[in-house]
Amino acid sequence: MLSKNKIKQIHALSLLKHRKAMRLFTAEGSRLVLDFLESDSRKVKELFASPEWLKTHGNRYPEVIKHEVTGQEMKKISNLKTPSEVLAVIAMPDEDKTASVEPGKWYLALDGIRDPGNLGTIIRTAEWFGIDTIFCSADTVDVFNPKVVQATMGSLSRVSIVYTGLTELFQKYKNIPVYGTLLEGIDISGIKNPEQGIILIGSEAQGISKELIPHINYRITIPPAETSKAESLNASIAAAVVCYALLR
Amino acid sequence: MLSKNKIKQIHALSLLKHRKAMRLFTAEGSRLVLDFLESDSRKVKELFASPEWLKTHGNRYPEVIKHEVTGQEMKKISNLKTPSEVLAVIAMPDEDKTASVEPGKWYLALDGIRDPGNLGTIIRTAEWFGIDTIFCSADTVDVFNPKVVQATMGSLSRVSIVYTGLTELFQKYKNIPVYGTLLEGIDISGIKNPEQGIILIGSEAQGISKELIPHINYRITIPPAETSKAESLNASIAAAVVCYALLR
Repeated sequence: MLSKNKIKQIHALSLLKHRKAMRLFTAEGSRLVLDFLESDSRKVKELFASPEWLKTHGNRYPEVIKHEVTGQEMKKISNLKTPSEVLAVIAMPDEDKTASVEPGKWYLALDGIRDPGNLGTIIRTAEWFGIDTIFCSADTVDVFNPKVVQATMGSLSRVSIVYTGLTELFQKYKNIPVYGTLLEGIDISGIKNPEQGIILIGSEAQGISKELIPHINYRITIPPAETSKAESLNASIAAAVVCYALLR
Repeated sequence: MLSKNKIKQIHALSLLKHRKAMRLFTAEGSRLVLDFLESDSRKVKELFASPEWLKTHGNRYPEVIKHEVTGQEMKKISNLKTPSEVLAVIAMPDEDKTASVEPGKWYLALDGIRDPGNLGTIIRTAEWFGIDTIFCSADTVDVFNPKVVQATMGSLSRVSIVYTGLTELFQKYKNIPVYGTLLEGIDISGIKNPEQGIILIGSEAQGISKELIPHINYRITIPPAETSKAESLNASIAAAVVCYALLR
C-alpha cells in the first residue's frame, strides 16, 4: 500500500519548484514508460504499476524499485484524467550547459513556447524529422511538466533539450545559418537544398523576440492561401511544416 | 448581476447533450468573439463582457443581447483557467446534410479525431491552406466543444464542418481522389502537381479505419528520418504537412 507521504511526494512533482529541487519528473502510460526504460533504465527510479503490468514487464528491469498499486491508488498519484496502468518517477538528465552546435546538422531553437502541448508535439515532430537537439529560451515551458512529457509520446527519452540564452547561442555560432519563421519572409518552398542550420520558432502570442531578429539569416514564412483570414499558424504546426520543407 | 439560473445555463453548454439540445455553444476571448461577430453577428445570441470591453466594442453590434459582468462573475461562467474579458453564446449553424464535393477543390476528411486540441488546430490549419470544408466521421469529437472552439482561433467562424458518413461520401464522389495518410505509402513529396482531392486523416490511436482503406486512391506517408524511433506524428501535424505538401 502507498503511504500518504509517498503520494504527496509524487504529487509534488507536478510542480516546477519540486521537480527542480528533486531533479525528478513523472511519466505515465505503458508505451511512454517503456520508452524511458529502454532508453536508459538507470534513470527510472521508481515504478508504480498494476500487478498485471509488473508481471508482464517488471522482470526486465531488476534495478528499478517497483510498487504494485491498485486502481484507486493510481487515481491518487496520476496527472491524467484517465489514469493508466503505470507511472514512473524518472531522474532528469544532467543539465547540458555547453549548448554546442555542429556544422552539417539541423537544430530547433524555441523562443518562449508556453503551451505544454505545443512543446511536447514539437519534440515528437523533431525526432521524426531527424533533429536530436532542441534549444529552448529560459522562458519556454519546462520540458518535464507532465503535460509536455505526455505529448512527446516517448521522443523526450531520445531528444536532447537544452535551456540556454538564444542570443548567446547565435553569437557563438555565427557561421551556422538561422532560419526564423515570421509572418513576412521568403516563401519556405523557395529555399533550395539548404544543408544545415537552426530553425527559430517564436512564442504563441508574441512570435520571435525583437532582440533575436537581427540574428536571423533567412526570414522565412509559410504563405497562407489567398482566401485565408487566419492570423497565424499554431507554433507546433509551423515548426513541423518548416522541418518538412527544409530537412526532407 | 447574473442570476444563478443564467450561470447554470452557460455551464450546461460545456456538455455535448445540452449543446445539441439548445443548438448553442460558447466562445471566449476578445479576438475569437470578434471573429464570430464579424463573420455573422446574427448568430451571436448573447455577450457577457467587462464594462471596458462593452464600451470599446459593444455599440457595433446593436442586435446582440449584452450583459455587463464582473471579474468574479466571469470566473463562474468561463471554461478557461484564466478567464478573458468576454464570453459569447452563439447559435450553431444549420446542419449541412448534403456534404457536397466540388471538383477542382481540396477537402479534409477526419476519421475519428478525439482530441479537441487536434481538431481545433486542424481547422485553423485548413483555413491557412485554403480549405473551406472539413468532413468529420460521427465519432470525431464535437466541433462545438469549448476546447475545440478555442483552439480554432477564429477559423471555426469561417470553415464549414460537416459530420457525415465517410464511406458514403467516398462512394458518392468516386471520381474525386482520396489521399489517405498511412505509416506506409508513397512519399508525400513525390506526388507532383496534384490538383484536387480529399485528404483523409485517421484517428490519434487507431489511424484510418479498416473500412475506409479500400476507398483510398493514394496511400501517402511523411517519411521519418532514418534515426527516428518515433512511432507516428501527431494527427494535426500530419494533416498540416500533407496540406502544405499537396496544396502549395
